[in-house]
Amino acid sequence: MNWITLTTDFTEHDGYVGVMKGVIAGIAPEARVIDLSHTVAPQDVFQAALLLGRSVRYFPAGTVHVAVVDPGVGTARRGIAAQLGQQFFVGPDNGLLTLPYQQAQAAGQPVRIHALENPAYQLAQVSRTFHGRDIFAPASAHLSAGVPLERFGAAVTDPVLLDIPQPRQTAQGWEGRIIHVDAFGNLASNIRAEMLADLKNFHIILKNKNIKGISATFGNKAQGELVAVIDSFGFLSICVVNGSAARQLGAGFGETLQIVRS
Amino acid sequence: MNWITLTTDFTEHDGYVGVMKGVIAGIAPEARVIDLSHTVAPQDVFQAALLLGRSVRYFPAGTVHVAVVDPGVGTARRGIAAQLGQQFFVGPDNGLLTLPYQQAQAAGQPVRIHALENPAYQLAQVSRTFHGRDIFAPASAHLSAGVPLERFGAAVTDPVLLDIPQPRQTAQGWEGRIIHVDAFGNLASNIRAEMLADLKNFHIILKNKNIKGISATFGNKAQGELVAVIDSFGFLSICVVNGSAARQLGAGFGETLQIVRS
Amino acid sequence: MNWITLTTDFTEHDGYVGVMKGVIAGIAPEARVIDLSHTVAPQDVFQAALLLGRSVRYFPAGTVHVAVVDPGVGTARRGIAAQLGQQFFVGPDNGLLTLPYQQAQAAGQPVRIHALENPAYQLAQVSRTFHGRDIFAPASAHLSAGVPLERFGAAVTDPVLLDIPQPRQTAQGWEGRIIHVDAFGNLASNIRAEMLADLKNFHIILKNKNIKGISATFGNKAQGELVAVIDSFGFLSICVVNGSAARQLGAGFGETLQIVRS
Repeated sequence: MNWITLTTDFTEHDGYVGVMKGVIAGIAPEARVIDLSHTVAPQDVFQAALLLGRSVRYFPAGTVHVAVVDPGVGTARRGIAAQLGQQFFVGPDNGLLTLPYQQAQAAGQPVRIHALENPAYQLAQVSRTFHGRDIFAPASAHLSAGVPLERFGAAVTDPVLLDIPQPRQTAQGWEGRIIHVDAFGNLASNIRAEMLADLKNFHIILKNKNIKGISATFGNKAQGELVAVIDSFGFLSICVVNGSAARQLGAGFGETLQIVRS
Repeated sequence: MNWITLTTDFTEHDGYVGVMKGVIAGIAPEARVIDLSHTVAPQDVFQAALLLGRSVRYFPAGTVHVAVVDPGVGTARRGIAAQLGQQFFVGPDNGLLTLPYQQAQAAGQPVRIHALENPAYQLAQVSRTFHGRDIFAPASAHLSAGVPLERFGAAVTDPVLLDIPQPRQTAQGWEGRIIHVDAFGNLASNIRAEMLADLKNFHIILKNKNIKGISATFGNKAQGELVAVIDSFGFLSICVVNGSAARQLGAGFGETLQIVRS
Repeated sequence: MNWITLTTDFTEHDGYVGVMKGVIAGIAPEARVIDLSHTVAPQDVFQAALLLGRSVRYFPAGTVHVAVVDPGVGTARRGIAAQLGQQFFVGPDNGLLTLPYQQAQAAGQPVRIHALENPAYQLAQVSRTFHGRDIFAPASAHLSAGVPLERFGAAVTDPVLLDIPQPRQTAQGWEGRIIHVDAFGNLASNIRAEMLADLKNFHIILKNKNIKGISATFGNKAQGELVAVIDSFGFLSICVVNGSAARQLGAGFGETLQIVRS
């Protein structure tokens, strides 16, 4: 079975995503397409990169992940296809695959990237503004149907990588940042569970609020209570029980938080 | 063919639904997944239960319906898998399957429920906050691939059931409630078409407005007119022609309406 | 492989689209369903007709496109199934297929339309308000499974067609209209690229703003700049770089624009 995922900022209002699926259907009828998200904030490459970084490990080996958040469409920016570990990627070369790239490198797994240059694997007419349909959807379909990476174009050894903010150690613990706000208003930080292992007792400061330690879950807390949990991707996350921490704290993407030993 | 439906309050913004599909793909590649809704109001178990109650009969026998609206995630609440009539269900034991359960019981059809306890049918790492990915998606995939219900865990004979409000007879007719507001603003009540059969002439009172009798459809009425129809699921529904009854009347979920014999 | 696309104004909140897919699954389990859009503006037949007109050519020959934007549901309006060129259509006879119809006619391709009258290809119970589920989904599934068009009902030679506004030539160039606003706020007009070929130098006037000539793309322009491009469907489109032209100009559907020779 050949799986393809799609991640875009197109929304599904205008049929652009449907048209990409139509193009894939024409080239690789056996491929099965899964939507990851089509409501990435417009042109927010960083958000899409984080989404891919935490999601792709849950897909079968060999899945092709197409990501089209592409403020540079029509400029000289390259299109690329890549194998990173056991997953494949197709999209503009603008940093979308930063996390899977770094993870594959750190694990000593395969890292192969090629430019999308070969017109044989593009639609006959390539527009200047919709490479999702004209270049990336066809590339993903051909890749899924077995075309080897080398056939798409020259090897790329210098992919664009984003500067993902890392937590830094402080005298009292850690300083991190909110790097994802989900639809529930949960605030996910870049602090990983392992970083908290040494700190026996600690509290978290975010927007002048103090949160004591980590709760096992939010299911057994009072409605509206502010809690810190380790989220399902292994990161420290600030939540309001059956509510929105983003709204309650007025906090969003990029906000700084402190982990302070007690 | 093995069908799985998904109903959640996750939205599709954050890739959580896509990740559930990735997990299913890895376990049961032949399964075909259909989204029922991912915009149930956050933590609104009642709304999701109604949605399932009116929808599942339209799916092929053997379909596995996964519902994850789960305010109690991470607490002691059970996960369950069930056969109710010819449909299957997977989700938290919080009342989501109340209507299919009651319908199967009333019809003398199979009612078999088992707890989701067997770690062989869960992801290797189970988080405290995302059982949709770690427990329910894998269970649905294994069920769809032929694992018998008994293998998941102990039989459950006391599933949590919701108290679905029933219409009550009054001296003049019936008193009911609005139990669903759809995206068009149509207000569906819990009054079934059969209940109106005896009342020859009647009017409906909702928010101090009088609506006379039932219209066959809203297609042949004047724009903006307030009408009562029997909706496509067999319930009395209050609508505004090409408009929103919810907005026009300022009425929503739970509102009381009176059926009064004329 | 048999493909079916769905275009509706149902949204995906209430499970109506999922139920249509359940009905299709029961009749044509091999069919593969692709969502084109479910957030057409409520009852906006014109918008859905444009969406289909620019999208269907990207789908494999033989795809069945189901469109249900249906303000006349339950009235005497017909349901139809059609072959237009190499694509198939199912929906209410209210103009939704105007563009594919006109394109097929202009190209001398097959144009065959039949009424949906045969109850053998409908659900056993047909409601007055949800023909998407009861008539159109079953028709698309049977069509996809090989039932010939003639079997659905009488031939239709006078389908309802929309009056799609055409640009008109003026002393100085062209006068056109905005006929689509996408989720990014890009304003697509009905002026086709070919119409601008003769005009060497020109500017565009929209909402008292002057835009000089056509930009190859918006990727290499300054953030917030107002530009005109030929969009990926071949139409003149007014955009704001990484922003919303609709919001910045306060312009929307139906707005007039002038192309003036310089």
